[in-house]
Amino acid sequence: MPRDPLGLDDTIAALATAPGRGALAVVRVSGPAAFALVGTIAAPWPPAPRVASLLALRDPRTGERIDRALVTCFPAPRSYTGEDVVEIATHGGTAVPAALLAALAAAGARPAEPGEFTRRAVLHGKLDLAQAEAVGELIDARTQAMRRAALTQLDGGLSRRIAALREALLHVEALLAYDIDFPEEDDGPVPRARVTGAADDARRGIEALLATVPAGAIARDGAVVVIAGPPNAGKSSLFNALAGEARALVTEIPGTTRDALEAVVELAPRDGARAPWPLRLIDTAGLRATDDRVERLGIEVSERWLRRAHAVLACGETVEDVVRTIDHVGAITDAPILAVWTKRDLGETRRPPLLAVSAETGVGLDALLAATVDAVVARHGAPDPDLPLVTRARHQRALEAARDELAAFAQAWTDDALPAPVAAVHLRAAVGALESVIGAVDVEDVLDRVFGTFCVGK
Amino acid sequence: MPRDPLGLDDTIAALATAPGRGALAVVRVSGPAAFALVGTIAAPWPPAPRVASLLALRDPRTGERIDRALVTCFPAPRSYTGEDVVEIATHGGTAVPAALLAALAAAGARPAEPGEFTRRAVLHGKLDLAQAEAVGELIDARTQAMRRAALTQLDGGLSRRIAALREALLHVEALLAYDIDFPEEDDGPVPRARVTGAADDARRGIEALLATVPAGAIARDGAVVVIAGPPNAGKSSLFNALAGEARALVTEIPGTTRDALEAVVELAPRDGARAPWPLRLIDTAGLRATDDRVERLGIEVSERWLRRAHAVLACGETVEDVVRTIDHVGAITDAPILAVWTKRDLGETRRPPLLAVSAETGVGLDALLAATVDAVVARHGAPDPDLPLVTRARHQRALEAARDELAAFAQAWTDDALPAPVAAVHLRAAVGALESVIGAVDVEDVLDRVFGTFCVGK
Repeated sequence: MPRDPLGLDDTIAALATAPGRGALAVVRVSGPAAFALVGTIAAPWPPAPRVASLLALRDPRTGERIDRALVTCFPAPRSYTGEDVVEIATHGGTAVPAALLAALAAAGARPAEPGEFTRRAVLHGKLDLAQAEAVGELIDARTQAMRRAALTQLDGGLSRRIAALREALLHVEALLAYDIDFPEEDDGPVPRARVTGAADDARRGIEALLATVPAGAIARDGAVVVIAGPPNAGKSSLFNALAGEARALVTEIPGTTRDALEAVVELAPRDGARAPWPLRLIDTAGLRATDDRVERLGIEVSERWLRRAHAVLACGETVEDVVRTIDHVGAITDAPILAVWTKRDLGETRRPPLLAVSAETGVGLDALLAATVDAVVARHGAPDPDLPLVTRARHQRALEAARDELAAFAQAWTDDALPAPVAAVHLRAAVGALESVIGAVDVEDVLDRVFGTFCVGK
Repeated sequence: MPRDPLGLDDTIAALATAPGRGALAVVRVSGPAAFALVGTIAAPWPPAPRVASLLALRDPRTGERIDRALVTCFPAPRSYTGEDVVEIATHGGTAVPAALLAALAAAGARPAEPGEFTRRAVLHGKLDLAQAEAVGELIDARTQAMRRAALTQLDGGLSRRIAALREALLHVEALLAYDIDFPEEDDGPVPRARVTGAADDARRGIEALLATVPAGAIARDGAVVVIAGPPNAGKSSLFNALAGEARALVTEIPGTTRDALEAVVELAPRDGARAPWPLRLIDTAGLRATDDRVERLGIEVSERWLRRAHAVLACGETVEDVVRTIDHVGAITDAPILAVWTKRDLGETRRPPLLAVSAETGVGLDALLAATVDAVVARHGAPDPDLPLVTRARHQRALEAARDELAAFAQAWTDDALPAPVAAVHLRAAVGALESVIGAVDVEDVLDRVFGTFCVGK
């Protein structure tokens, strides 16, 4: 029998939980032989479908015991992949899952490729492509805002909007096809305005999605908040104090930059209020201190960060320093600038709009974080858990292509010198671009790219 | 109502899988309010017992969605802890489990202490103390040999033997009590020989368990195999080649020693043969190279390792070097010494018992590893998956105490000058020592010590 070109003949196995020390580890097996294969390892077999059953696991080669484990069978199609799936919850750590995976391999399971379980979920229609990508984003989410965005996408929030836009364009295509096929029809040509209007509506819908790209970037990585100021303005103390203020919600970003300290800070949502944006605090002070021309604010690294900033904390120990920092920063970025006087512990009080803080005593830190979030919201809008955000470059590129093709379509359609089929090509390209987001067609082309970045077991 | 002094009134929650990037994470909830509490988060509620059900999770404070997750309820007493337990398998990573744990805390769950789930399993009689310790050893097992030993202990292998020894001593105690209470009884005193014989049998049983301590140490950490020889004898190349030869089964031991390179190597079991002992390869060459007196073999670190060695690979580039190394090593340790000629790639062949290897070409490495395992087996016996090994210092100390008390008992019992109740005190102490291993009495005293080293969620 010829092998399935998509590799779905194989039964695959992998560790589904993070490697390392833990009470439990879950090994996932999926494919046509999943039940038969685990049946050679686990006894008594089979357990009732979907019922967690404590079974003894033995290596089929040696009969040696591996563990006692909770085994749950998910018969197709009611499983993550849409295939027969077995989830085996063993004791955690290294040795037990390794022994089980070795036994599964001996029994005939192939070690899964990165993302292969989710890939199969797509191929069996359990998830569309955007939802599958959301699984990856949910797992990699560093912020609660990103978790919310990924969950909305996993629930189909983005997919539904794109599917609706695609439907609208297919309708325009149908009108166009009618016009092309029956130009001399009795009931006259399709009204130009009707086609133009429908295409414009779709283009506006696409642009609304593209308008969420900045918010998507903030959800993913946090709003870039640069702590700026002259040397010895208390920037590093402020950074540490702000990061510590929200310690439970701080994520260190390992190795992403070598030229600045970073911490993602996320405030807890207040009752009844919307969850706030995460803030990505940037302290370039360490590098600045080693610079000879320390008096100059705009050294290269700071400038690079300032140009990307969503907000800037302009710091100084004196009002004059703060004002000077604001002038410097304002020449580089048009992001909102918060004036921060870092010597509140000296006892002196300053009138607003100067935000007086003390890293020493903690005075003013809460208010500064809240004011920073407010500044970001004022510029970029508030987080909306129900709004699908465009968080992936792949989706952004596809939506931009669709928008551009619709613009080209509108131009061709209203140009009487061009025949309707020329415009139709642009319309088809726009539909194709939308389809590539949700994987309605050409799925296999993009699958490799999408799932290559997944971790194994997903 | 007064609070339960053991803290069992609380419902506890924790991440049960290793933290980090993975497709799945499992959060465990246990306690009297587990079902009610998760019911405020998961819908629709309740799912059928033990059936994995895909539910929507929401934060009870904000109504915000957390994830869609597979939720399985385990009604008491058929659960890990013996209490009502809920296991919630969410998407993995950081953000989703963190959001769920925050929601559970808001709903009234207390974050679990390290090992608290297993502690509750003991308190509810699901596991005895030795089995609970085996859970920890299973998770921390670095070698398959240790996994086997821990699994035997979890299955009650050690507990049953200790319980049988305890029963035997309780029987002796009963004989003794009869003798003490009714010394003038008509049917005469209890025959001395019967008591002595029974106590001796128990002492021999305890000594048989204590005899497994060296094998337990080998199972846990691997047999210490020191690669010895003069500088530039190819020791480091050999270390790397041997570690690489079994790469899939190598564990680096992080930070345990700073004076030597270590790698635990475990050969795959051959069909039909017993699983081999793991080997803990020790290369002290790095330090030796910085020593001034490089000609002297027995520098301090090497000597320290050599005194702990289960086997030594005496290396040399020439036969003369090998012989000289054997002489040096033999003066320090009586562990088996394998003669290893490290320049097999020079083409020259040597007669046995010289093991000719080449780190360059890989020639002889398999044979060297097999010969090393054989040497360890010849000295310390072969691994037996069904033999309970004493792997914990706590058990060893308790068994040694029981043995010593039995010796004191035998002495007091046969000393006619001492009254029987004096001997009985030693017998009672021996019983108490055995009971402390399995937690038959005085459980609470040792619980804190035992579970303090566990990871949270276990």
